[in-house]
Amino acid sequence: MMLTLSYNIIRHEVIGMADTFEFRGVYPPIPTAFDDAGGLAPDRLAHNVELWSATPLDGLVVLGSNGEFPQLTPDEKVKVLATVAEAIEEGKDLIAGTGCLSTRETIELTAEAAELGYDAAMVVTPYYYRPRMTEKVLLEYYEAVAAAADIPVILYNMPTFAGINMSVELVAQLAAHPNIVGIKDSAGNITQLAEYVQATPDSFAVMAGSGSFFLHGLMAGAHGGVMALANLLPWECCKLYELFEEENYAEARELQAQLVPVNQAVTANYSIPGLKAALSLHGYYGGPPRRPLLPLEKSELEELKGLLRESGFIGC
Amino acid sequence: MMLTLSYNIIRHEVIGMADTFEFRGVYPPIPTAFDDAGGLAPDRLAHNVELWSATPLDGLVVLGSNGEFPQLTPDEKVKVLATVAEAIEEGKDLIAGTGCLSTRETIELTAEAAELGYDAAMVVTPYYYRPRMTEKVLLEYYEAVAAAADIPVILYNMPTFAGINMSVELVAQLAAHPNIVGIKDSAGNITQLAEYVQATPDSFAVMAGSGSFFLHGLMAGAHGGVMALANLLPWECCKLYELFEEENYAEARELQAQLVPVNQAVTANYSIPGLKAALSLHGYYGGPPRRPLLPLEKSELEELKGLLRESGFIGC
Amino acid sequence: MMLTLSYNIIRHEVIGMADTFEFRGVYPPIPTAFDDAGGLAPDRLAHNVELWSATPLDGLVVLGSNGEFPQLTPDEKVKVLATVAEAIEEGKDLIAGTGCLSTRETIELTAEAAELGYDAAMVVTPYYYRPRMTEKVLLEYYEAVAAAADIPVILYNMPTFAGINMSVELVAQLAAHPNIVGIKDSAGNITQLAEYVQATPDSFAVMAGSGSFFLHGLMAGAHGGVMALANLLPWECCKLYELFEEENYAEARELQAQLVPVNQAVTANYSIPGLKAALSLHGYYGGPPRRPLLPLEKSELEELKGLLRESGFIGC
Amino acid sequence: MMLTLSYNIIRHEVIGMADTFEFRGVYPPIPTAFDDAGGLAPDRLAHNVELWSATPLDGLVVLGSNGEFPQLTPDEKVKVLATVAEAIEEGKDLIAGTGCLSTRETIELTAEAAELGYDAAMVVTPYYYRPRMTEKVLLEYYEAVAAAADIPVILYNMPTFAGINMSVELVAQLAAHPNIVGIKDSAGNITQLAEYVQATPDSFAVMAGSGSFFLHGLMAGAHGGVMALANLLPWECCKLYELFEEENYAEARELQAQLVPVNQAVTANYSIPGLKAALSLHGYYGGPPRRPLLPLEKSELEELKGLLRESGFIGC
Repeated sequence: MMLTLSYNIIRHEVIGMADTFEFRGVYPPIPTAFDDAGGLAPDRLAHNVELWSATPLDGLVVLGSNGEFPQLTPDEKVKVLATVAEAIEEGKDLIAGTGCLSTRETIELTAEAAELGYDAAMVVTPYYYRPRMTEKVLLEYYEAVAAAADIPVILYNMPTFAGINMSVELVAQLAAHPNIVGIKDSAGNITQLAEYVQATPDSFAVMAGSGSFFLHGLMAGAHGGVMALANLLPWECCKLYELFEEENYAEARELQAQLVPVNQAVTANYSIPGLKAALSLHGYYGGPPRRPLLPLEKSELEELKGLLRESGFIGC
Repeated sequence: MMLTLSYNIIRHEVIGMADTFEFRGVYPPIPTAFDDAGGLAPDRLAHNVELWSATPLDGLVVLGSNGEFPQLTPDEKVKVLATVAEAIEEGKDLIAGTGCLSTRETIELTAEAAELGYDAAMVVTPYYYRPRMTEKVLLEYYEAVAAAADIPVILYNMPTFAGINMSVELVAQLAAHPNIVGIKDSAGNITQLAEYVQATPDSFAVMAGSGSFFLHGLMAGAHGGVMALANLLPWECCKLYELFEEENYAEARELQAQLVPVNQAVTANYSIPGLKAALSLHGYYGGPPRRPLLPLEKSELEELKGLLRESGFIGC
Repeated sequence: MMLTLSYNIIRHEVIGMADTFEFRGVYPPIPTAFDDAGGLAPDRLAHNVELWSATPLDGLVVLGSNGEFPQLTPDEKVKVLATVAEAIEEGKDLIAGTGCLSTRETIELTAEAAELGYDAAMVVTPYYYRPRMTEKVLLEYYEAVAAAADIPVILYNMPTFAGINMSVELVAQLAAHPNIVGIKDSAGNITQLAEYVQATPDSFAVMAGSGSFFLHGLMAGAHGGVMALANLLPWECCKLYELFEEENYAEARELQAQLVPVNQAVTANYSIPGLKAALSLHGYYGGPPRRPLLPLEKSELEELKGLLRESGFIGC
Repeated sequence: MMLTLSYNIIRHEVIGMADTFEFRGVYPPIPTAFDDAGGLAPDRLAHNVELWSATPLDGLVVLGSNGEFPQLTPDEKVKVLATVAEAIEEGKDLIAGTGCLSTRETIELTAEAAELGYDAAMVVTPYYYRPRMTEKVLLEYYEAVAAAADIPVILYNMPTFAGINMSVELVAQLAAHPNIVGIKDSAGNITQLAEYVQATPDSFAVMAGSGSFFLHGLMAGAHGGVMALANLLPWECCKLYELFEEENYAEARELQAQLVPVNQAVTANYSIPGLKAALSLHGYYGGPPRRPLLPLEKSELEELKGLLRESGFIGC
């Protein structure tokens, strides 16, 4: 599974690493592009990355849940990481989803991400032996990964898919590790997100995990957001962050309210297939999800189009 | 179970009803006062009501979850409703928790609340035959209760205790009923709260159900809050609402952040026994919860005191 | 809520108590009969009780989940208990579901059941403040109820409705109390049922809570069953118990297999409304469930009839 | 990831395939052997396989949950499959756990298993995008895998780890596929297991997924069991099956009861680390689990030893 030379961009030697990465602002967890046969479509992915490069997004998260990471082989993961690293414009942060189901695989993939110039690794809680993922097991897991990593580690709390919720106590403990620098919190429990903020130092970045509660997360002390919606509406998501930063709360509220229906459509309702369909309607490459996930049916696609049209953000 | 005359204040004839009730602002779901033997302590309750009357609270919610409603007999419920109705100062709204486990008992208790001058009835989802509480069953339930009620009906979504979450679709459908005027949402899912707001007319009041996400609820379009914390810190909760209304978001954020640890202590961590202990430390009558709920143990009480002291709001 | 004299049968003085009650065999949790207006129909109930009296059932459980106990007022509960006590034939055990949401109400209703001559009280876990129902709270609750009761107490584990599962450790601890004599286990986890058996003395009766796993419960050491199906097919359920007792396992297996589809229809699929509809088709009084529960729709009724016909047990 | 020739045993050409595989009896889901550094220990694994070969076990399930399949790389999975195929004695069935998170990986690993001579593939429900795993998605998934496979496919229902429960309707539909021949059901819901049996033809093998309800599963119509306990106590598990087959139910009950505490220790309580520790105490190679799973702590090991000693099956 070791990296072939052609991917070996060593991006962080060029632009520097630890001194430039600050986990703040707006990051989309980008989808992985597949062709109709279900194979990787690196050119399509690179094309999308170029489009996102031309937006004010702070960086990209590669191989998150929206990147269908569990449905890629180890080799494919490296290929995707390399493709994005090659296509990205300088100045954007690159975060790699490197969480695997064994400690050693997570460490190895993190090392590959570091070599490819990624700024940080985002590591989901292991998601199979869920009742066995005690606080102690999770603590040792993250500490082992963080200790071995050449790049900073970001926690990834995703109860809907991973079936585990990281407690405030656990996050507080892990935040004390010098190489654990933040958390993407997709739980949707705004109180817990506020408690994460309060239980960790300000240098530890708590990131809202959804466009539906981005502003609320910020109001509760989050440092930014990692959210599917930023793939589709990067300008609008960055605008929302800017409005918040400028303390223009009234407009921020209004924009947040407008984003909820679009975001629910491409996450809760239609999920990855919906996000991909929406991207196709908006100038990006969408393409099919990888099986077993199924593309939208015709009637679903029509419904989605209606929702997007109504939102006013996307003409289709 | 019919009301004896001595309770028969017919408060709403005096102060008028439909024209004065607007469900907006800050309401505590008040605890029911018990003596050490576990019996009702109406004088203690009346004393607390007088204290709350002297605050800027918009009204009181009697017989909510913090009022230990499921642990009272039908007669005791009427006694509590009457006690509060007698003790409250004019101008405060009175909302009665009247949700029982059968449609007919809910209708009957709602009628008694109306006769006692209550402004509205808050009705929790039935909470025993949970897998049987389909959308259809809930729709017919609330419509039957609303049709029979002489006062407006407020929905009460409380998944943590009741084990049921009301969908956005169901709430939208029920909001179309002329006598269903709002929802107390204690789910803690800020996205769903925002969707409730968007799926209902502005005349339908969505109320944040916890002091930990009061500001976030308001930012998402809520019309106020019904929250345990308002029992203990009524001035601070009203201040937060005022700051929001004045669009002083920066100070509102700060105050919200300060309230989270206190609120978590008296809700998530120590719940009703914790709220009662905190009230005792702050000039109100707290008293024991009713069994099977147990009062705080000594060590828990010490921990709670520490938390309250740290918060700066309560000297103890 | 005290009992009027007309109900005051003091049945256990006539037939003796502790020496005759042995919790073994087959007991239906009988439904409560309502008329079309939703009121109690005591004559209909008495009629059913007479029918059940003429079967080999070991006794009746009154005010269980199938008895819609949470949907009755305290007065109605006493009326139902009294009606059954009057109508039952001598020699059948009478068990009252007396679990309420406060310790004091449970104790009071248990006392009324004892006065009415009931042989034992079955007490469900409190089901509203579910996250607060710690092992400690449950332990103190059951010990308080058992200490106050003049009749033996039976635990009732019903996670589907009550939202709480009693651990093996808790049941083992409670089984040590001299006045706690058994458990109705409706969890459907056969391993846990086996562990209950192994963690308690043989004098403690573990009863299978469903006709779908009656034989399996017996094979795992249960002492009998308390099951909805025994309302509808008392002879067949008793036959199954007899086959087991006679060690005629091959026939028992066959009969158990035949009972599963009928039982699933009147429990998991259509629940109380289904059981009542099936009773109507089989010579008993069924009648409507009490609202908010809704009677079967026409199409559901036709489906149920088909299932019952196929089963061969009921011609309809 | 294609197989190197050295593994290429093509076992099923030698012993025949479809005509010899019948999924009946007792199968352990064998653990994967790791050395102290966390690497594969193929010799240790082969040693264990030789020991199991000398027992009456009907075959082995490789790469099940107890085989820590999610914690192995694709290459390691093939290595483990090959190692077992080489070490196994003729006449034992070989079943490969080939469920991955994408349809294409599952198909590929199934093909490799077939080439290595495996008799069947056991495929767990995909376990990451759990709320997206609708009946339709699962139906298409299993049909695609079964259509592509050169060996029969076995469903694997494992709600505790995978977070998904396969409905009776889904299993019935899939059982109609000519290349889907059975299910390992680890849900522990004996009623559902009975319904699986009743909803599928007798040629479809329903296998109890735990030693705690093996006999109960058989009584409900299961065709055998795939259970962790059979690793540790193969003779006893086979004895239980034999007693059942001989209709010696009384002895079977007794033996089943004796096995429950041992099985709970090595599954529910201590899980894979416990099973491995127990194997070490009983003449097999246990070794450490792979991280993030942690080996037993000293105190846990002592407790486990006590339990095993008490059981009488294992002297330690």
